[in-house]
Amino acid sequence: MSQLEGLRAAMSRAGVDAMWVSGPANVRALTGFSSPADGKVLVTAEGATLYTDARYTVQAREESRLPPVIARPPETYEHAASPVRDLRVGFEAEYLTVAGFEELRAHWDATLVPTRGLVEALRLVKTPGEVQAIRDAQDLADRVFGEVRPMIRAGVRELDVALELELGLRRAGAEVGFDVIVASGPRGAMPHGVASERVIGDGELVTVDFGARLRGYHSDMTRTVAAGTPGEEMRRVYNAVLEAEEAAVAAVRPGARAADLDALAREILERHGLGEAFAHSLGHGVGLNIHEGPGLRNGSEDVLEPGMVVTVEPGAYLPGVGGVRIEDLVLVTEGGSEVLSRTPKERV
Amino acid sequence: MSQLEGLRAAMSRAGVDAMWVSGPANVRALTGFSSPADGKVLVTAEGATLYTDARYTVQAREESRLPPVIARPPETYEHAASPVRDLRVGFEAEYLTVAGFEELRAHWDATLVPTRGLVEALRLVKTPGEVQAIRDAQDLADRVFGEVRPMIRAGVRELDVALELELGLRRAGAEVGFDVIVASGPRGAMPHGVASERVIGDGELVTVDFGARLRGYHSDMTRTVAAGTPGEEMRRVYNAVLEAEEAAVAAVRPGARAADLDALAREILERHGLGEAFAHSLGHGVGLNIHEGPGLRNGSEDVLEPGMVVTVEPGAYLPGVGGVRIEDLVLVTEGGSEVLSRTPKERV
Repeated sequence: MSQLEGLRAAMSRAGVDAMWVSGPANVRALTGFSSPADGKVLVTAEGATLYTDARYTVQAREESRLPPVIARPPETYEHAASPVRDLRVGFEAEYLTVAGFEELRAHWDATLVPTRGLVEALRLVKTPGEVQAIRDAQDLADRVFGEVRPMIRAGVRELDVALELELGLRRAGAEVGFDVIVASGPRGAMPHGVASERVIGDGELVTVDFGARLRGYHSDMTRTVAAGTPGEEMRRVYNAVLEAEEAAVAAVRPGARAADLDALAREILERHGLGEAFAHSLGHGVGLNIHEGPGLRNGSEDVLEPGMVVTVEPGAYLPGVGGVRIEDLVLVTEGGSEVLSRTPKERV
Repeated sequence: MSQLEGLRAAMSRAGVDAMWVSGPANVRALTGFSSPADGKVLVTAEGATLYTDARYTVQAREESRLPPVIARPPETYEHAASPVRDLRVGFEAEYLTVAGFEELRAHWDATLVPTRGLVEALRLVKTPGEVQAIRDAQDLADRVFGEVRPMIRAGVRELDVALELELGLRRAGAEVGFDVIVASGPRGAMPHGVASERVIGDGELVTVDFGARLRGYHSDMTRTVAAGTPGEEMRRVYNAVLEAEEAAVAAVRPGARAADLDALAREILERHGLGEAFAHSLGHGVGLNIHEGPGLRNGSEDVLEPGMVVTVEPGAYLPGVGGVRIEDLVLVTEGGSEVLSRTPKERV
């Protein structure tokens, strides 16, 4: 079943005749258009169209798998008014703003129906081409991390480490998937501590979380490494997180419940007295977005299937003291799983 | 009047008792929190709160001027339900999604009122601290441009110029405010020609538009420089744009109407036969967003006030031939104005 056939089946289940797609990653998934924040897609029973503006006339023609219509609002809405007349038109409640909704309502003679996750559901399981893009992005990130690892030592600024990682990705033609996290010493207690001007100190742990974006697809990996010899407490924390991470990675397979994987890692950290310190969920899917489904967290109803790509990333954060996170990028395969991130985990 | 007092006055004029702020730059403006896409602000008559999640416990405590509440939806909405009970609560129609709106409606016993631009209006006039951040960002951009200027010559790729500018900003701890524009020769006819692999040719004009982001605030400047000696026509275009730019900058002062500044520059270019070639507006405000109010354009009702920071950037674009844009970053002062961008404008 093609992607558009899959979407039309989902539309039918959701009780809509047509679908107005405005979430950027969803627009890109349906079209291949690489400036999707400036695009919208209309899918009806008969056709599917990419709307974008005159800045992208050439680019849309080259990239889009759907025929492009070049227009700016309000012409965009006026052009779409005829194909949607008297239909039930689904829109993406999680992306369309209230102001955007009012625009559609003002221009269309149609019944607008809020929907959630229709295109996202099609994106959970990656195509072979998507897996290859993610694999290539991660291979590049592994290579760059290996090149930069020797400079992660006492006396170096966090942001110089981040800059070298970024340059490595950029020189190879990739983009940086998200702001590079380099969090040393007490800054390690911030799960999202993007690189600062702080100078790494001797004996500190340094958490490095970074990813490449290649052909629109992301990689994601975290390593916590030591600059010198860390103290007893942080070594204990590191080894507890490593134990939780390896156990959860080993449990990834088709049929595994995402919530169970989270619980597995959490129980190990609780046993080490670090339950409170593990202040986020275990992981998430990765693709056109750095964070997408499935959600590896408490309460998730997602069940892993072959072709899903997920992170496994337990952490422990001790305010004022420091922190540890270890993250692998894992492909669910027919037979179990394949860890795409190959950078070795160090013993500290 | 403090920012919060200003917002409460605007809320009163808009007929709301409380305000739910979800636009990232608006959240940052009210709090100082540097991960505002993961934050929301509730302002009532009595109090004001930043909502964010446990990833940012330490960061929110360090950065936020408003007391943070650490929660994830739906706890976020549940926590806010009590202070908003029976109130008229404004939300930002241009940022809140339909799904976000439904969440508020499901959790709150309140009347939800769409609003537009309340916080944006407060951001038009910068505080001294904001001006300093913009000034520091522009000082850095000026320094980096001076360092990179010698490499802008025939035989060099546009993207290598862009990468050097970017590296200079990054090494100094700043971010790149937007994709660096380096448009040489005929590519100069594209107002948004981000750097490509094109090699700069002898006798060509090169338009370089770039800015830093420092502590969240942007700088913005464009210089068109010559690689060798340009031909007669492009020199004529350059000098016409320069004349328009200098005249408009000289007219920046408190009380000046933004639309009049645009008209002033446009009339000069029309006099040189370049009215059609000036295909965009004169300028825009700069702050937490690279493009914000006031709008220096035809039809704008904005009037300049001390503390506003605006760009003045006339250009002329000749398809197939080339283009010129010259842009300064200008602070409106009590006595008139101060040009923050110090990079000399060359004579070509």
